[in-house]
Amino acid sequence: MKRIAVLTSGGDAPGMNAAIRAVVRQAISEGMEVYGIQEGYAGMVAGKFIELDVASVGNIVGRGGTFLGSARYPEFAQLEGQLKGIEQLKAHGIEGVVVIGGDGSYHGAMRLTEHGFPAVGVPGTIDNDIVGTDFTIGFDTAVTTAMDAIDKIRDTSASHRRTFVIEVMGRNAGDIALWAGIASGADSIVIPEENFDMDAIAATIRESYESGKKHNIIVLAEGVMSADEFGERLRESADEKDLRDLRVTELGHIQRGGAPTARDRVLASRMGAHAVKLLKEGRGGLAVGIRDEKMVESPILGTAEEGALFSLAAGGKIIVNNPHKADLELADLNRHLATF
Amino acid sequence: MKRIAVLTSGGDAPGMNAAIRAVVRQAISEGMEVYGIQEGYAGMVAGKFIELDVASVGNIVGRGGTFLGSARYPEFAQLEGQLKGIEQLKAHGIEGVVVIGGDGSYHGAMRLTEHGFPAVGVPGTIDNDIVGTDFTIGFDTAVTTAMDAIDKIRDTSASHRRTFVIEVMGRNAGDIALWAGIASGADSIVIPEENFDMDAIAATIRESYESGKKHNIIVLAEGVMSADEFGERLRESADEKDLRDLRVTELGHIQRGGAPTARDRVLASRMGAHAVKLLKEGRGGLAVGIRDEKMVESPILGTAEEGALFSLAAGGKIIVNNPHKADLELADLNRHLATF
Amino acid sequence: MKRIAVLTSGGDAPGMNAAIRAVVRQAISEGMEVYGIQEGYAGMVAGKFIELDVASVGNIVGRGGTFLGSARYPEFAQLEGQLKGIEQLKAHGIEGVVVIGGDGSYHGAMRLTEHGFPAVGVPGTIDNDIVGTDFTIGFDTAVTTAMDAIDKIRDTSASHRRTFVIEVMGRNAGDIALWAGIASGADSIVIPEENFDMDAIAATIRESYESGKKHNIIVLAEGVMSADEFGERLRESADEKDLRDLRVTELGHIQRGGAPTARDRVLASRMGAHAVKLLKEGRGGLAVGIRDEKMVESPILGTAEEGALFSLAAGGKIIVNNPHKADLELADLNRHLATF
Amino acid sequence: MKRIAVLTSGGDAPGMNAAIRAVVRQAISEGMEVYGIQEGYAGMVAGKFIELDVASVGNIVGRGGTFLGSARYPEFAQLEGQLKGIEQLKAHGIEGVVVIGGDGSYHGAMRLTEHGFPAVGVPGTIDNDIVGTDFTIGFDTAVTTAMDAIDKIRDTSASHRRTFVIEVMGRNAGDIALWAGIASGADSIVIPEENFDMDAIAATIRESYESGKKHNIIVLAEGVMSADEFGERLRESADEKDLRDLRVTELGHIQRGGAPTARDRVLASRMGAHAVKLLKEGRGGLAVGIRDEKMVESPILGTAEEGALFSLAAGGKIIVNNPHKADLELADLNRHLATF
Repeated sequence: MKRIAVLTSGGDAPGMNAAIRAVVRQAISEGMEVYGIQEGYAGMVAGKFIELDVASVGNIVGRGGTFLGSARYPEFAQLEGQLKGIEQLKAHGIEGVVVIGGDGSYHGAMRLTEHGFPAVGVPGTIDNDIVGTDFTIGFDTAVTTAMDAIDKIRDTSASHRRTFVIEVMGRNAGDIALWAGIASGADSIVIPEENFDMDAIAATIRESYESGKKHNIIVLAEGVMSADEFGERLRESADEKDLRDLRVTELGHIQRGGAPTARDRVLASRMGAHAVKLLKEGRGGLAVGIRDEKMVESPILGTAEEGALFSLAAGGKIIVNNPHKADLELADLNRHLATF
Repeated sequence: MKRIAVLTSGGDAPGMNAAIRAVVRQAISEGMEVYGIQEGYAGMVAGKFIELDVASVGNIVGRGGTFLGSARYPEFAQLEGQLKGIEQLKAHGIEGVVVIGGDGSYHGAMRLTEHGFPAVGVPGTIDNDIVGTDFTIGFDTAVTTAMDAIDKIRDTSASHRRTFVIEVMGRNAGDIALWAGIASGADSIVIPEENFDMDAIAATIRESYESGKKHNIIVLAEGVMSADEFGERLRESADEKDLRDLRVTELGHIQRGGAPTARDRVLASRMGAHAVKLLKEGRGGLAVGIRDEKMVESPILGTAEEGALFSLAAGGKIIVNNPHKADLELADLNRHLATF
Repeated sequence: MKRIAVLTSGGDAPGMNAAIRAVVRQAISEGMEVYGIQEGYAGMVAGKFIELDVASVGNIVGRGGTFLGSARYPEFAQLEGQLKGIEQLKAHGIEGVVVIGGDGSYHGAMRLTEHGFPAVGVPGTIDNDIVGTDFTIGFDTAVTTAMDAIDKIRDTSASHRRTFVIEVMGRNAGDIALWAGIASGADSIVIPEENFDMDAIAATIRESYESGKKHNIIVLAEGVMSADEFGERLRESADEKDLRDLRVTELGHIQRGGAPTARDRVLASRMGAHAVKLLKEGRGGLAVGIRDEKMVESPILGTAEEGALFSLAAGGKIIVNNPHKADLELADLNRHLATF
Repeated sequence: MKRIAVLTSGGDAPGMNAAIRAVVRQAISEGMEVYGIQEGYAGMVAGKFIELDVASVGNIVGRGGTFLGSARYPEFAQLEGQLKGIEQLKAHGIEGVVVIGGDGSYHGAMRLTEHGFPAVGVPGTIDNDIVGTDFTIGFDTAVTTAMDAIDKIRDTSASHRRTFVIEVMGRNAGDIALWAGIASGADSIVIPEENFDMDAIAATIRESYESGKKHNIIVLAEGVMSADEFGERLRESADEKDLRDLRVTELGHIQRGGAPTARDRVLASRMGAHAVKLLKEGRGGLAVGIRDEKMVESPILGTAEEGALFSLAAGGKIIVNNPHKADLELADLNRHLATF
């Protein structure tokens, strides 16, 4: 393989730039040329290709976002979109592609591979909800940002003896809530993977104030419900007096940005380089992951027995094999640590 | 004066702990004893006094919030509340009081002074909206927190070519918006002290994208309107296409917390110590400020000619002499710097 | 087991407080009482025991250092010291001990266990050089601190086209150098686990400037030699002109302090709680670790076949089974990423 | 004036990029063209000019260092160097110059003005030691970096009951030491502007430990002596036992780098824009400053009566009028706050 391309797709995540840098530098060090495709699959179809050299990715290892830009492009699910993209890849002499993004973007990688352009997926999303990897690029940074914000809010919470419901991101996964909640000493963590008992939460709040606690922080994963809705329901279940001036807040978009943490930079560097090694061997249709602190790769599509991330069922339905699950031992751990 | 007390009142602000520490240490170094009053004027009335020594305020110079706690207590505006508080002060042998808080809390300090207990106000609020001082304790930290958050959101904004409306705090003052906006390179800053033209903002957004800009950040002071409302009105004034996937976000409570910046710690230390020096001279009914980088004090109540912060008009109405004004040269500066 | 104690030993590390908190809260939630022993084994012998409750460890999850204090105490290697310590444990009704520290402190835990007081070790050190665990508490924070410092120095390096040799901690291990070096985009990483060629480094510097690079950062693990010595040798191997105003710097003690990262807080919380679970089952002589993202424990002393961390050879010599090794794939990765 | 240039000179400082951005954007918004000169006066002589537009300075408001590069160039003190520089200015059609740097670089600005090219100086240095301004660009960031480092070291200091001597930058000025020392709650601050009594410091350390303090931090300005030398002298003046395992450390180059604080970004933006306004009026030979929170300018060379920063005495000797002085009230303040 003489020339490869790299793109970022879906929501941006801190560490994507570090991953692009690793793709570019690893490829060049292996004697390949590299193009960047701007704005994801949309840019591929529109022909937004730029040649990247070592200097193009200088000083970006620590920058948030993605300098290539990202975009949603549902049209790429259709054959027509794919063929246009392939035309562009051919026109630029590209022989392989690295796709950095959520698992939605893996399907495009699979299609390109089927059309003869080996493509490898790299998991970049703050939500940590991608199959085939213990951690995604951006997760550690998002946890850190959420933790920092909760730490700040706790100052205010403690000063005023207030109860706070803080909604964090994570789509349908509770990972950000669990990690940020434990890291910031949250009193309760509410995630979509577990049922919760609003009356028990209300009782916990009451008892914790009675026992002298100065603050009460409930970390809520967005996959459960919105902070506003949760706050309303909590008000229905508790005496206003016990809630101590309840406030609800949604951390919002700060969680997607910011300089990546050391861990995310190293993870992104390893994954980007690993993806290039796979392409160099002519392998595509794979997604990179980290398992037990080691780089691994899994077929994107295939049978569960082959270790594929997704399988096709009758009727074209896509089945997720071995879907991502938040670590419920962390949920249990927090119940012990929030003891009062 | 042999024994003084210190309390924090109103919304908490980063640096309040550093101010308390300065009050305690300065007082002890001048041979006085110090009590802390918990939870503001409410705690004064309820008799929540604790003796503080040097070690009580060890390692708090860098902590957010206020370890004494704060609370609203409108009852202190009534004579009855004041008399109860004074009874408690007498019972604890207190001869002077330092009140750290917003200018609402200054009125209590004035009343105590009138009743024979010299009290000095120290301006602690993130909003920078207090008369008698160039800067308040907590403002620099709030600006820093807002700037950091906007920097993070810009990563995402640039990656997706999105327009963001970001609402920052400041009550009726535009100071946080102006400083954080300039510091983070905002494209527009909208503050209550100036009119704004929604059509011009919409035009700016369109033109900036046409000229190749990758992001568009509008920093909105909460005193103008909410981000949601602003977003709605902007949508009415602009083509959806030009807005590039508009998002609105409210930074919220993180702005009130967090470890104080170096500047806020130094400012709080100076102001706390200065308040003690005034009490030591037997002076009360004053509020501390920083003017031209020097410690100053102003009478809380009196005539404008005396330099008093507030005057009583006929009918008991309180007039704010020389009210705080945001620096509109900063607004003008940003219009030049956001040039495209 | 009704009552346990916890101590921190050896050099302090960020996250030790989070581990103490987890020990205390997990134990209380399991119905046990907990004492803290101040200043490590020295404090055990001197009888510095304090009872800890839930509130004692409130708000410390994010604090650097160890509030129990730590100290070196080589006397505990002798039987006499151990017996004195045991006397104190008995006097306080302690039935089990959690020891948080480097592997030097594990030996004390082994001795206590042999004397009938089950003790469990928890790996707390920034150096990541402890057997039986993939990561130690404090490592991620030290990497982050080093990365932040290198990022700052790079600003200056790039502004002046200077070459910097930056010495980071890690004792005999290159882990901090590898992680911080990759995370900050270092041009070279020099670690004790690999030979290095000073002429090659000099050549790299020359070539990188010729190719237009603006800075050159060499991250040096302290286990190799001091930055001063390295700088001198580099000067001997290179033309002064090529070194572009060489500067050497030692990051120093900032690497041991600071608020722990999210990852260290979660790791410390998991390990502290796991140690308590082992004690609760009456198990001692074990050290906690994380392997493949799961909590594990290993016998401190025994045969290699049993998975023990250390074995006793003839003559009382201690053998380290399966000693810690830095991940040399990271070293290889950086050689590709520093491509120019 | 139709076209101006901007350069950075001397040691780099955080906020220089923000100042460059302000120069460029303000100039463009006033209808002028702007060139950047790379690597200071050396680059001026060598003809390293690049045209800058609005996008050239996008996203740099928050970056440390200077993207134009900086360099020492003593040759510019000679007429020959100046004439070469002027030739280049003429060749590029430049009519005015903004020089961002220490007051050493002001002399070049004065010479250019005398040769008919109005030049304005902007004070950029972390040391805060420049005449004509209350604060320099970069000072607040350096204070913040030093404070953060001292906070981290305090964790370790408190965990081990150690005494630390921490050397901070500042050349001959004690400003960084004073601000960072107060902000981090240092026990002693030693600056060149005041005599110090080593015996008194030793006594303070002893007494503070006796009174129960867990740590002892001495912040030392580099203008006094090196940390190593100070440590040696302290060891001579004190009992080893009282020093509690004395450590000395030099914070070093991290103080020059890093993302500028909000305050430095705003200050740099104001100063850069103000310099352009002066050039626009055809004024040169001036240096920008901030006094009492307002933008001011002073003649670089002239009589003290004119408010000039420097005067020429007989024999060509340069006299500094009204030299910078650290605020000794801060030194006094810390003596009270470090009370024990």
